[in-house]
Amino acid sequence: MDITEFVELSLGQWRSQRSAHNLAFSHFEQVISTIDIVSLSPEDPAVIALCESHHIEPKLAIHPFQMTWEGESDWEEGEIIKGSTILVPISDPNDPTKGKLLRDQGYAETIPAVGNYHFNEEGTFILLTPYDRAMAEERIWFASPNLRFRVSLIKTSGGTGVVTASFASEIRSLNKE
Amino acid sequence: MDITEFVELSLGQWRSQRSAHNLAFSHFEQVISTIDIVSLSPEDPAVIALCESHHIEPKLAIHPFQMTWEGESDWEEGEIIKGSTILVPISDPNDPTKGKLLRDQGYAETIPAVGNYHFNEEGTFILLTPYDRAMAEERIWFASPNLRFRVSLIKTSGGTGVVTASFASEIRSLNKE
Repeated sequence: MDITEFVELSLGQWRSQRSAHNLAFSHFEQVISTIDIVSLSPEDPAVIALCESHHIEPKLAIHPFQMTWEGESDWEEGEIIKGSTILVPISDPNDPTKGKLLRDQGYAETIPAVGNYHFNEEGTFILLTPYDRAMAEERIWFASPNLRFRVSLIKTSGGTGVVTASFASEIRSLNKE
Repeated sequence: MDITEFVELSLGQWRSQRSAHNLAFSHFEQVISTIDIVSLSPEDPAVIALCESHHIEPKLAIHPFQMTWEGESDWEEGEIIKGSTILVPISDPNDPTKGKLLRDQGYAETIPAVGNYHFNEEGTFILLTPYDRAMAEERIWFASPNLRFRVSLIKTSGGTGVVTASFASEIRSLNKE
């Protein structure tokens, strides 16, 4: 698996069923959302601006994409959670199984972030993103072309303690409404 | 990672927070339980009987153990889910990273079962257990000695469709009450 194949497999609309576990309090959160993943042109001004803000040559960008989500959590009755982020993979020139992932809005904190990704021998995408006060570890793998799973851990900044663990089952929406 | 090290790490009492996703109906189930994992002697009559029922030499058993659980699901208000099973690993004589796992009570169906396990390069324990009408895939990994995660998939017997996906965060109970 490499980043090009992974992004290609991820393109489309997904129905996501996510459970988050707050480990200190044994709380559960349930989120149902729709996720849209679309390809962006490497010449898209937002992609170029994101590369330049990280002092990276825009021509090193591989298969940039945009992720948009809209959903509801059982913690915020009736409130819609929505957002969108641009993601730009920068593959390691010496090793196609790893690289950096730039994003204009992070997962644990809503600020620009840079993560390090790699693929393990099973083709699981593993992304580690350091933030000021936290560290996010994300693992995404495909059970089939139309079903993927995502485990996300939010750790303390030292990376030792896990604060929140979440698991998402994501099914491709074959009939886009 | 090999099965001896994995069982050693697993011994003790765990507080498990588990979410199950029914993928066809987007239903969530939440389970809080206590899991006790204790070592059994290879000479334990129940271990010997389980090996013999599978026509396996009891002396091939490596680090047999018993798992007992007691918990509550939000689907069955007030009802206690409890059970216990004996598990006997039989390591592949040519490859310590894989083998068979015998159990006297299965996960997807409450009948004796034999699964095939292996460890991947990251030390994740992966167990595939075929049943008459289903296939169970379980992945267990340690984030630290006191925190482990478990992803379980129940698939159709052909192994193609995933019916249920569940995720458990398991924290070691340091002060056993």
